[in-house]
Amino acid sequence: MRIALGISYSGQPYDGWQSQPSGRTVQDQLEAALGRFATVRLSTTCAGRTDAGVHGLMQVVHFDTELQREEFSWVRGTNTFLPPDIAVQWARHVPDAFHARNSARARRYAYVLLESPVRPSVEAGRVGWVFRPLDADAMRAGAAHLVGEHDFTSFRASSCQSPTPVKTLAPIAISRRGPYWRFEFEGNAFLHHMIRNIMGCLVAVGQGLQAPGWMREVLQARSRDAAAPTFSPDGLYFLGPVYEPHWELPSHPAAYDWLP
Amino acid sequence: MRIALGISYSGQPYDGWQSQPSGRTVQDQLEAALGRFATVRLSTTCAGRTDAGVHGLMQVVHFDTELQREEFSWVRGTNTFLPPDIAVQWARHVPDAFHARNSARARRYAYVLLESPVRPSVEAGRVGWVFRPLDADAMRAGAAHLVGEHDFTSFRASSCQSPTPVKTLAPIAISRRGPYWRFEFEGNAFLHHMIRNIMGCLVAVGQGLQAPGWMREVLQARSRDAAAPTFSPDGLYFLGPVYEPHWELPSHPAAYDWLP
Repeated sequence: MRIALGISYSGQPYDGWQSQPSGRTVQDQLEAALGRFATVRLSTTCAGRTDAGVHGLMQVVHFDTELQREEFSWVRGTNTFLPPDIAVQWARHVPDAFHARNSARARRYAYVLLESPVRPSVEAGRVGWVFRPLDADAMRAGAAHLVGEHDFTSFRASSCQSPTPVKTLAPIAISRRGPYWRFEFEGNAFLHHMIRNIMGCLVAVGQGLQAPGWMREVLQARSRDAAAPTFSPDGLYFLGPVYEPHWELPSHPAAYDWLP
Repeated sequence: MRIALGISYSGQPYDGWQSQPSGRTVQDQLEAALGRFATVRLSTTCAGRTDAGVHGLMQVVHFDTELQREEFSWVRGTNTFLPPDIAVQWARHVPDAFHARNSARARRYAYVLLESPVRPSVEAGRVGWVFRPLDADAMRAGAAHLVGEHDFTSFRASSCQSPTPVKTLAPIAISRRGPYWRFEFEGNAFLHHMIRNIMGCLVAVGQGLQAPGWMREVLQARSRDAAAPTFSPDGLYFLGPVYEPHWELPSHPAAYDWLP
């Protein structure tokens, strides 16, 4: 029997999603908790790995088990053994054809950025930070060059394991509330560090260090050297994968409205 | 010369505001950082002490010094020596007649509460939590009994050092966004644990364990035994003191819009 779980977590204290020998990853914590609840080792497959420091509002995983449990028992039982900053939000019995990664037709992320002369404090580790004012129109003009299907090699980390650098990006929504900027990304898939590298470039454009058209030059260069440095992981939130409605999985992460 | 500072901090890792032998308080961190920047010991007086786990969006302190520094140098210099979850937001030269505590004519707090069958995760330590649904009308009716000048002994911790239990409370604004409730408090001053004790009672009313009129009974009992248990500090934010406009101090905390 295949089970899907929706999981939210703070990325701040963890070495990213994917299991490591250190054991200090979100996947390690989740599988340890599942193992204690199920009293048998369970291996999970996730919709999208997140880097160290990146938060998850609705990560989705699946695993296979012979155990018969009510859906909410998986939620409550697993949460008993998870640390306070990780929680299973829902569990669903799914057909064997469902695959957390392969069934996702898109992924959504948000980046939250504090624009202030003073660094973050109460929101430390949860927002990126710029002290120079940003120009929304310039960033929107720059971001428009990235929309559609492109070879995103210039925004790809050398560690990236994707079989292809060609991805399709939806329009990037850029909004602001008080001193907080919010950038919303949706794409069929993302390369390693792709959003953080795009953010580095958008901030350079927003601060007037580069013209909006420079985004197109960076994209066309197909070279990591063309882009700005990788931006901080602190403000990056994995909002979750997008699945076809027929899987009948919850889609709206509860904590989404919490973000500025 | 007297200087006022506005300070924001996460209360999560600290033993409250007020200096302790442990040194693990926000005041200890602030005075250590001020001392390193000023190379002389500086003692601060705050507008309102916060308990362990309670956050500050705009705490205000004052101190006296002979040092001549630009206002923003106090901000930048002190922040260099503060931990990442505490930051000075502004500094102002103020008349000697200004006193961070005595000049405050009111204090404002917000309590953020997650209503969800699943405990907090990405927002752990930053919101209170109830898993049973809350009734807004019942809570508003109950809260109305507290408005005005009253003897708040029933909501007072035994450790409270206030010379009088009589305080004046403005109407409590109760609103909701998604699964997050927000309660806004303003009063001339607050007793120790007063808001957390009020929250415990409002939640009991909101869950239907008590009728709204019970709030009046609790108030009139003038006994701590009459009220519900003290609610968690996790969702409590000190929004800051309210001063007369002639002091010309910044009033709106930047992180306020961050809260749900």
